[in-house]
Amino acid sequence: MSDKVARAALTYLAEPGDPWLAALVGEYGAPRTVAAIRDGRFPAGAHVPDAATRAMKRWRLRLAELPPADDLAALAARGYQLICPGDPRWPAGLADLGDAQPYALWARGAVTDLAAVTRRSVAIVGSRAATAYGSYVAAEIAASVAARGWTVISGGAYGIDGCAHRGTLSVSGVTVAVMACGVDRPYPAGHRDLLDAVATRGAVISEWPPGRPVARLRFLVRNRVIAALASGTLVVEAGQRSGALNTARHASDLGRPLMAVPGPVTSDLSAGCHSLIRQWGGTLVTNADEVIERLSAGSPGGRDAEAPGRGPVPGAIPAATSPRNLRGRADLARDALDLEAATVLDALPAKGAGLPTAQVAVRAGLEPKVVLAKLALLRVYDLAERTDGGWRARRG
Amino acid sequence: MSDKVARAALTYLAEPGDPWLAALVGEYGAPRTVAAIRDGRFPAGAHVPDAATRAMKRWRLRLAELPPADDLAALAARGYQLICPGDPRWPAGLADLGDAQPYALWARGAVTDLAAVTRRSVAIVGSRAATAYGSYVAAEIAASVAARGWTVISGGAYGIDGCAHRGTLSVSGVTVAVMACGVDRPYPAGHRDLLDAVATRGAVISEWPPGRPVARLRFLVRNRVIAALASGTLVVEAGQRSGALNTARHASDLGRPLMAVPGPVTSDLSAGCHSLIRQWGGTLVTNADEVIERLSAGSPGGRDAEAPGRGPVPGAIPAATSPRNLRGRADLARDALDLEAATVLDALPAKGAGLPTAQVAVRAGLEPKVVLAKLALLRVYDLAERTDGGWRARRG
Repeated sequence: MSDKVARAALTYLAEPGDPWLAALVGEYGAPRTVAAIRDGRFPAGAHVPDAATRAMKRWRLRLAELPPADDLAALAARGYQLICPGDPRWPAGLADLGDAQPYALWARGAVTDLAAVTRRSVAIVGSRAATAYGSYVAAEIAASVAARGWTVISGGAYGIDGCAHRGTLSVSGVTVAVMACGVDRPYPAGHRDLLDAVATRGAVISEWPPGRPVARLRFLVRNRVIAALASGTLVVEAGQRSGALNTARHASDLGRPLMAVPGPVTSDLSAGCHSLIRQWGGTLVTNADEVIERLSAGSPGGRDAEAPGRGPVPGAIPAATSPRNLRGRADLARDALDLEAATVLDALPAKGAGLPTAQVAVRAGLEPKVVLAKLALLRVYDLAERTDGGWRARRG
Repeated sequence: MSDKVARAALTYLAEPGDPWLAALVGEYGAPRTVAAIRDGRFPAGAHVPDAATRAMKRWRLRLAELPPADDLAALAARGYQLICPGDPRWPAGLADLGDAQPYALWARGAVTDLAAVTRRSVAIVGSRAATAYGSYVAAEIAASVAARGWTVISGGAYGIDGCAHRGTLSVSGVTVAVMACGVDRPYPAGHRDLLDAVATRGAVISEWPPGRPVARLRFLVRNRVIAALASGTLVVEAGQRSGALNTARHASDLGRPLMAVPGPVTSDLSAGCHSLIRQWGGTLVTNADEVIERLSAGSPGGRDAEAPGRGPVPGAIPAATSPRNLRGRADLARDALDLEAATVLDALPAKGAGLPTAQVAVRAGLEPKVVLAKLALLRVYDLAERTDGGWRARRG
């Protein structure tokens, strides 16, 4: 089995960013990892904690969904490309995600050299329920940066995302839609034609295999890829609880330039943008010139000499893990979307100093050991954070 | 002649901020300075350059306007108070203006203890041609800060200024209007009732004596007093050439907190606010809480530990000058409002590295010696700035 076929298989078997899987692939490579899952046995010599054993059970549940190798060839023939780490077309920025780097990216469209098109790129994201103002500004800035050769990356959603893609297409620019489902699925349904147009001029890409539907947590997992692909992220309109702020946080954690468009203080949909500027160090930008200035040469006025280069903030991204460390990371088990994780999330306070794990367990009605595992999962998904006092929910 | 009567006389004789007059008053006191002007002779022993001699001629032109001492008493009886440096009611913040501190302030209204009412105060300023959005936000923030005991200072103009005053009055708060004309003159005429209402709850104040009309440069001169009186300055709406930016620059030069309300990037009247945030280090604020937070405890997020206290940025304000230094400051002659100064201003480039004085002289068709004097004047009025290459017009 080639590395590429094995990585395709991994996109079917596991959710993106699974640290157990990353550890196995890092140590044994993708083909041996897939073989291990098929056989239901970890490679000889690996120290395997209980949590990894549970992960193995999850992965095997999806063995039935795994298409045979010739089906993968058929997918390629239908225009669904698979781009893998190590391929010269693999975007350099994704390496900053460390363990959370995608196993591979499925792509549909005219552009498959993702390394080339993301080298000078900006993520333009924002609220689905955008106002006329935000819609106008998103399209205008996207068109202007695209006309100067910058690629516009967004999430394909209604509202700001859609305007960013459309604005880019209006000047025949290159735009990339990063999906939270298979690249063959038109999501949202009303954007079927838009996504086809994006594919014509650029690419529709995804960590999930063709056919895979969206799920709530997949949008959050997807956002880290938008932030890591782009040279910087611009939020045009976002409420205080908008998913666009999750993308912004990833950009910030990755040390990439973070920008926001201001708006009326009387508009709830500008409140998130104003918070980015006030509290997250985001740069206020009012037009494409200022976006490009920020991406090209640090912040305006020369007060911030920081180079725009890639590279994670030290400590922000977990270092690569090998199976040798599995035992030490037994608390990092993850199982996206399950009932227990949701129950733990509901039990967390949204404000204040946080709750100790034991109290979270009482509120959730779950064993402390399970709660600890779910908290770790929620943290990976950026839904919970550690505090001096314990754990607290984090604005998604 | 008492110091107070002498200072009243000075407000009639000279324009505010005249460095020659400040030097004389600093050395000999106000009474001897007035006597010297009456006699047309500098005190014995003073080294007097040509420019100071010209200033003496200007001051004496206004001797005819000087009311006798009993007229000053009559003004006081009619409710026009005079507050002078040294009076416990004199606002401490004005001392940061150094040489440019007012000779005295005329006040009309219920409040004469300007020291007390400006201790916790915010200047709320902005464009005359405000939008509905800016008008709403100015009134709303003014009302909220005033309801919590903060004094609102503004310039009494149409637009944002008027909304700031009215918003304060709507919660029976204290507001101060700083005029660019005598406190008895309703300027603008449409604000006659508003200014009377301001006087009822607070004060209408001015550096110019009763009866004195407005003049274009007086607004700019007045702005430094607004900035110096207030604990901090908030710009609600301002175009890129708005006079409110002049007030903002004074606040910045004085080291006071500078804040701006964002707005649509599609609105010319928010462009100045966005520049303040992007290029001048102004804090983006969206409501009264954030204004008070900035005034009380440095910038949000704890990133800026700077105390909100008063005090000039080192070097930003010229040190006090005594007549001993007059000779060294012969290039600082000023003669507001004259044709020559306006001609020099027109000859200055608005962008680029600036023009050497000799070239400015050619463009202006004036003697280099005259140009030098006018440039110095324009600089005092914040209309021109020195560059490495010479001189450049400065956004007023």
